[in-house]
Amino acid sequence: MRLLQAQEIEDIAAGSAVLGTGGGGDPYLGKLAALQAIKKYGPLQLVEIDELNDDDLSVCPFGIGSPVPFLERITLDKELAVAYKAMQRWMGRRVTAILSVEIGGMNSVIPFAVAAEMGLPVIDGDGMGRAYPEAQLVTFTLYGHSAAPMAVADARGNAVVVNSIDNFWAERLGRPAAIEFGAIAGGFGYPITVGDLKECAVLGSVTYAEHIGTAIRQAQKEHTDPIDAVTKVTNGFRLFDGRIIDVKRKTERGWALGETVIEGLDGYGGRQVIVRFQNEHLVVIENDEIIVSVPDLIAILDTERGDPITTEHLRYGFRVSVLGIPCDEKWRTQAGIELGGPRHFGYDIDFVPVEERFSRS
Amino acid sequence: MRLLQAQEIEDIAAGSAVLGTGGGGDPYLGKLAALQAIKKYGPLQLVEIDELNDDDLSVCPFGIGSPVPFLERITLDKELAVAYKAMQRWMGRRVTAILSVEIGGMNSVIPFAVAAEMGLPVIDGDGMGRAYPEAQLVTFTLYGHSAAPMAVADARGNAVVVNSIDNFWAERLGRPAAIEFGAIAGGFGYPITVGDLKECAVLGSVTYAEHIGTAIRQAQKEHTDPIDAVTKVTNGFRLFDGRIIDVKRKTERGWALGETVIEGLDGYGGRQVIVRFQNEHLVVIENDEIIVSVPDLIAILDTERGDPITTEHLRYGFRVSVLGIPCDEKWRTQAGIELGGPRHFGYDIDFVPVEERFSRS
Repeated sequence: MRLLQAQEIEDIAAGSAVLGTGGGGDPYLGKLAALQAIKKYGPLQLVEIDELNDDDLSVCPFGIGSPVPFLERITLDKELAVAYKAMQRWMGRRVTAILSVEIGGMNSVIPFAVAAEMGLPVIDGDGMGRAYPEAQLVTFTLYGHSAAPMAVADARGNAVVVNSIDNFWAERLGRPAAIEFGAIAGGFGYPITVGDLKECAVLGSVTYAEHIGTAIRQAQKEHTDPIDAVTKVTNGFRLFDGRIIDVKRKTERGWALGETVIEGLDGYGGRQVIVRFQNEHLVVIENDEIIVSVPDLIAILDTERGDPITTEHLRYGFRVSVLGIPCDEKWRTQAGIELGGPRHFGYDIDFVPVEERFSRS
Repeated sequence: MRLLQAQEIEDIAAGSAVLGTGGGGDPYLGKLAALQAIKKYGPLQLVEIDELNDDDLSVCPFGIGSPVPFLERITLDKELAVAYKAMQRWMGRRVTAILSVEIGGMNSVIPFAVAAEMGLPVIDGDGMGRAYPEAQLVTFTLYGHSAAPMAVADARGNAVVVNSIDNFWAERLGRPAAIEFGAIAGGFGYPITVGDLKECAVLGSVTYAEHIGTAIRQAQKEHTDPIDAVTKVTNGFRLFDGRIIDVKRKTERGWALGETVIEGLDGYGGRQVIVRFQNEHLVVIENDEIIVSVPDLIAILDTERGDPITTEHLRYGFRVSVLGIPCDEKWRTQAGIELGGPRHFGYDIDFVPVEERFSRS
């Protein structure tokens, strides 16, 4: 077990915003919640999976909905308390550990606040190794583990428990509830034993996020290139440097949908790319061709400072760098590509791993 | 306790289709399910509320959604089995009686099939004394009794348990699930003790429906006027006789919405009325004036035979009679009119009881 202080939480928040590929909501807010929890409960507990018993039961707390309203509602603490109570009532089994459903923005830092309140440890790992916009898009699905029972709740005290036959139905039934709640809701789901998580989770991803965050912080401190620092830690690729010349976005069916148009600068002058998103970045398009796609990660970072920018904060004029980062191997299996690859999001192309298309500069 | 044979079930089905005011789905299908249950389990048990103990717990099975797909899915037996299991798991308390949530079409006859399978009696009463298109539009709401926990399920095995803070939220959270399930779902809800039902339910309404059904059947047999027979049993009013010249309908947000235009015949020649519906009939309009409205009941019956016609069966050319029937007194209180009156459905008029506007012919 490792005890996390404020600095570690800050690094995890920054790093998971990179892995959040534009989604997951403003990590600053999740970080605030975790820092408040440190103040109240002391350092937060991060455990490696091997430190737990195989029959320990883990659940994932999450925010569900379009990230835009996250800007107003900070911690989802009331929502999560209602959801947890509902899930517990349904399950009738004691939970002994907390896992992030995704490494991305709020959803990867909020679990620390939740776990501190519950006196439980957070497992070093998550269910995606990135962020994804739909409940079934977790590596758990690839191994037949259920999102259900999944409880979704609002701050008023309303809760819905989804007991679905599969994780696609968990998504179909959970999201309408979040939409009724006003586009954002708190939830608990994915009750999975530690023994099963060893096979089906993306392990070590909290530490991975922390390394990314640390690299950005050190580059800022040492005035070295933060983008290069991130590509080094992630084995990622610097795809494009430029200035944002347009951001289109709309909220539809509970998602933030849109695209960002970036005009090349410096070595990228005269070129233009479009990055499309559904909460998370899905594809990078240049000259009508998709040059990087899910399941690989697409991150947009402030070129100067290396700070990751979530889609709701992207603005005209920002100087940004676009990175392509290899996803976890679980997503690169045939089943993984079918579940979370380009065709799932309506792009009829074969997935090409980012390292096959780009070479390191 | 009274044992119901096939004839009683047929009469209840016919009568509750009158009280269903155009909604509640095709009563023929609910009747089939109940008749099958008689075949399998013997006569069905109808009990008066006083025959049960005050701490007996009753629940209401129901179909939720637009009635149109009812035409294809007969009994909702799989849906209801899944929903019941989910609700039981949430409640953890034994159910000892079954109540119709509404007297209207399928939802008032299906409970007999469900109860027979569960070996439970059906209480002579319901939660509306009519049919209504939204989950909160029950007399229970007027007395502060909750629709929750409410379980909604499909035939695939998916279930959602809604644990809402009030019955408006039960509606808002239950309907989207039904829509995801394909516009129709089976559900259980409104767990209320017999002691509380004595105050908040519309009691005796199954027998009332049976009397209406019997009156129609006898009029058909004796070749007397079946419309007059219904107005006599219900203290209702024959508002209009005519021929349907137009039916507009659409399915929207899980409801069948539309209107029926009827051109007067015989004594009503030269006149025209429009009957608007949201699953159930809401208002009768003549010369741009609302002449009857919810919460009073508006029924459209075949003029010759007296058979009630649900909105999905209304067709151009049908010869029909429009009836206005006084609703239960609970709906005529200030709270009742606010909950289920014209303004709830967007008609900005004061409710005028049908007997104040019309006199008996």
